Amino acid sequence: MARGAGLDADRIVKACLAIADEEGIGQVTMRRLSRDLDVTPMAIYHHVANKDELFDLVLDESLRAVEPVDPAGDPFDELMRWGRAFHRLLVDHPSLAQEMASRRLEGPVAVGAAGRILDLLARAGTPDDRADELLVALFSCILGTAQYRISRNAESARRGGRALPEDFADGRAGMRDRLSDTSITDQRFAAILTVLIRGYLPAAH
Amino acid sequence: MARGAGLDADRIVKACLAIADEEGIGQVTMRRLSRDLDVTPMAIYHHVANKDELFDLVLDESLRAVEPVDPAGDPFDELMRWGRAFHRLLVDHPSLAQEMASRRLEGPVAVGAAGRILDLLARAGTPDDRADELLVALFSCILGTAQYRISRNAESARRGGRALPEDFADGRAGMRDRLSDTSITDQRFAAILTVLIRGYLPAAH
Repeated sequence: MARGAGLDADRIVKACLAIADEEGIGQVTMRRLSRDLDVTPMAIYHHVANKDELFDLVLDESLRAVEPVDPAGDPFDELMRWGRAFHRLLVDHPSLAQEMASRRLEGPVAVGAAGRILDLLARAGTPDDRADELLVALFSCILGTAQYRISRNAESARRGGRALPEDFADGRAGMRDRLSDTSITDQRFAAILTVLIRGYLPAAH
Repeated sequence: MARGAGLDADRIVKACLAIADEEGIGQVTMRRLSRDLDVTPMAIYHHVANKDELFDLVLDESLRAVEPVDPAGDPFDELMRWGRAFHRLLVDHPSLAQEMASRRLEGPVAVGAAGRILDLLARAGTPDDRADELLVALFSCILGTAQYRISRNAESARRGGRALPEDFADGRAGMRDRLSDTSITDQRFAAILTVLIRGYLPAAH
């Protein structure tokens, strides 16, 4: 196979994520990418015009890992499944969470996924303005909980598992233990997501 | 007044925020800070041991701008007021949102504020585990919505107000306009916050 043959969006995205996951998003450059893919920089510029477009592409393509909702399925179940998968994607790839917090997602995969959620909510009888709001609420709360979870993991590693000091929380009874356990687990995330979705879906669902 | 006289945490915090708001958090260094405050670096090291401690101090002190909840007040009203003020603080200071997404908040101001929220929820009859969960949910959703809002503002500026392309969203009727308006306003944030709080408070409230 010729050098760089078969270069497609999928290979570019995988190589980007590999660099970002291992070394941080700051290490992703067109030059580094072309080296890792064993292609010329021009081969990459054939797909994206610059790093800005590259990041847009990576974010959009990465969303393929989250199975879109089925507009004909049960609204609550579908949104829960989608939300949990999206949260998992971000927790597994902190660099995606970081970039999604600062860029608009409007590539074909993101738009397709959003469209299916709006279709699902329309079928469930959710008024358009509430459906639009839930879409924004879901995305930003999934992002916020993922970032919070990622940062707690990172901080725990930095502290080497060190517990909060004994005199923490002004000696308030019980408060130290409660504030020591402000982590987000899969279970806790699912409970938060449940409150959000139930609050928006008409009571019948 | 002697050079650097009256240096206290408040002055350090204000100088940090001024640099971060104007030029980004990356520009905050001990050297730059001592120059802006017209003190020797040693004067700053008298208050914080390193940049890590400095950032912890700035985040914690910045929370003084958010009036804590009154544990004797109406639970829904108090949490709404607190949540809106916290969201406003982050939207007004993007660097705070960015840092809060990656550090644990456990200084005296943060702990005091969290303690009052837990007291308020206990008074409202919320079970401890649900109260702990709401605390995490509130914080991470306020953070997520603020970051989303900040990034949309930044992206709009980058685009120079350019609308989404005509062929956006695959020509789906209405979808382009709906996805063009996935912004977070004060009103939309308050609606999301309402759903979250109502979902956790016992029905009586």
